Amino acid sequence: MTYCVGILLEQGLVLASDTRTNAGVDQVAITPKMHVFEVPGERVIVLLTAGNLAITQSVVNLCREQLTSDEGGPHLHNVSSLFEAASVVGSAMRSVHQRDGESLKAHGIDFSASILLAGQIRGEKPRLFNIYAAGNFIEATADTPYLQIGETKYGKPIIDRVIKHHTAIADAVKCVLISFDSTIRSNISVACPIDVMILPKDKLRADHRHRLTENDPDYARLRQGWGEGLKTVFSSLPDPQWSRV
Amino acid sequence: MTYCVGILLEQGLVLASDTRTNAGVDQVAITPKMHVFEVPGERVIVLLTAGNLAITQSVVNLCREQLTSDEGGPHLHNVSSLFEAASVVGSAMRSVHQRDGESLKAHGIDFSASILLAGQIRGEKPRLFNIYAAGNFIEATADTPYLQIGETKYGKPIIDRVIKHHTAIADAVKCVLISFDSTIRSNISVACPIDVMILPKDKLRADHRHRLTENDPDYARLRQGWGEGLKTVFSSLPDPQWSRV
Repeated sequence: MTYCVGILLEQGLVLASDTRTNAGVDQVAITPKMHVFEVPGERVIVLLTAGNLAITQSVVNLCREQLTSDEGGPHLHNVSSLFEAASVVGSAMRSVHQRDGESLKAHGIDFSASILLAGQIRGEKPRLFNIYAAGNFIEATADTPYLQIGETKYGKPIIDRVIKHHTAIADAVKCVLISFDSTIRSNISVACPIDVMILPKDKLRADHRHRLTENDPDYARLRQGWGEGLKTVFSSLPDPQWSRV
Repeated sequence: MTYCVGILLEQGLVLASDTRTNAGVDQVAITPKMHVFEVPGERVIVLLTAGNLAITQSVVNLCREQLTSDEGGPHLHNVSSLFEAASVVGSAMRSVHQRDGESLKAHGIDFSASILLAGQIRGEKPRLFNIYAAGNFIEATADTPYLQIGETKYGKPIIDRVIKHHTAIADAVKCVLISFDSTIRSNISVACPIDVMILPKDKLRADHRHRLTENDPDYARLRQGWGEGLKTVFSSLPDPQWSRV
């Protein structure tokens, strides 16, 4: 399983992904799910992947190979908008489906994959997309400025309560880490280390990347403060009178 | 969709269910999912139902009809343990599967249903079971003293943080209501009113039942206090230094 989240803020993008992959419970490994395509100062595009690892690795590899292919055609370093970038990744997803879809079906395996694409190309604002297994995609907007893939539910309530489009980057990072803590506590197939990427608006560089282990002091402090704070708030809430039996 | 939760405490049981049913988004109705079988002072058995409403209503109806059937046989008012009670409900589930399973399959509809069974029969402790669509079932234990069915994920983190087997009933009620608030905010197919039942140990009566509407003052106060408290805790947590970009 996987948990990835992308948040689209006025000040930029906050992205995070866990690193656990598993095929059954007896084959567990660490695999990064955050993939960076960068032309420093001109564009930065980040893919966060969830679903069947063979599919998503193939999609990312196809996108990498296109960069140096002699065939020409659009790729992530030459498209002029994030919309086109999402279309390039969607096409790569369809190529993998064309190659592997029938064989997977014959083995009773769903073609399950989804990819968050986030970043900025000079001349555009930061943008955030969710690309589905069918290669189609949706874009986040200021009204609901986040997208999640993978094991999304445990970590959604805190995001719904805290995140607005105008939220500060540092607050969004805190919120994302709490969202990961809730998810990791509830689903052992999501696990540290967590990769966090901050893409400040108009910086167009992927140089704010952080990998948090379980024992990272910032993460530990945040988890402890949050857990204790929740218990304090909980204790302070009034009992409904009728619950005193 | 549905959300039901049962909590097995040293002092008794706390049970709650929402009341929204829907067939598509254009057919939404209020239907109670909490069904009480009671012989006051001797036994109280409560069923909370999730899944296909035609299936779960049939199961509950079969269990009711058995009470007055001339055929004899075990039913919820004569079995001598909650384990047997779970078996009776599991058998009713299998009868419905035998009657409807093939037809549902022919229409491409999953046989989807699950039932929490909770209560106490004199001579036993309070017990809590989850009965699956196949009629088999599991029992909650002191180590993980709760069971959920339906839309379980949004409301799970707060239960995991707060609930122990020795938690007081009033605290468990508070926790359950917060768990419902998180779920209702994230999934519009779960909705008020919420039915809450408290079964204090050895009381053997279903006389602590409460229906909470969205505007119930206790529920509103709790939701507001929790929401504001979370935001205060969140604001008080330190930013990781590296997130200040």
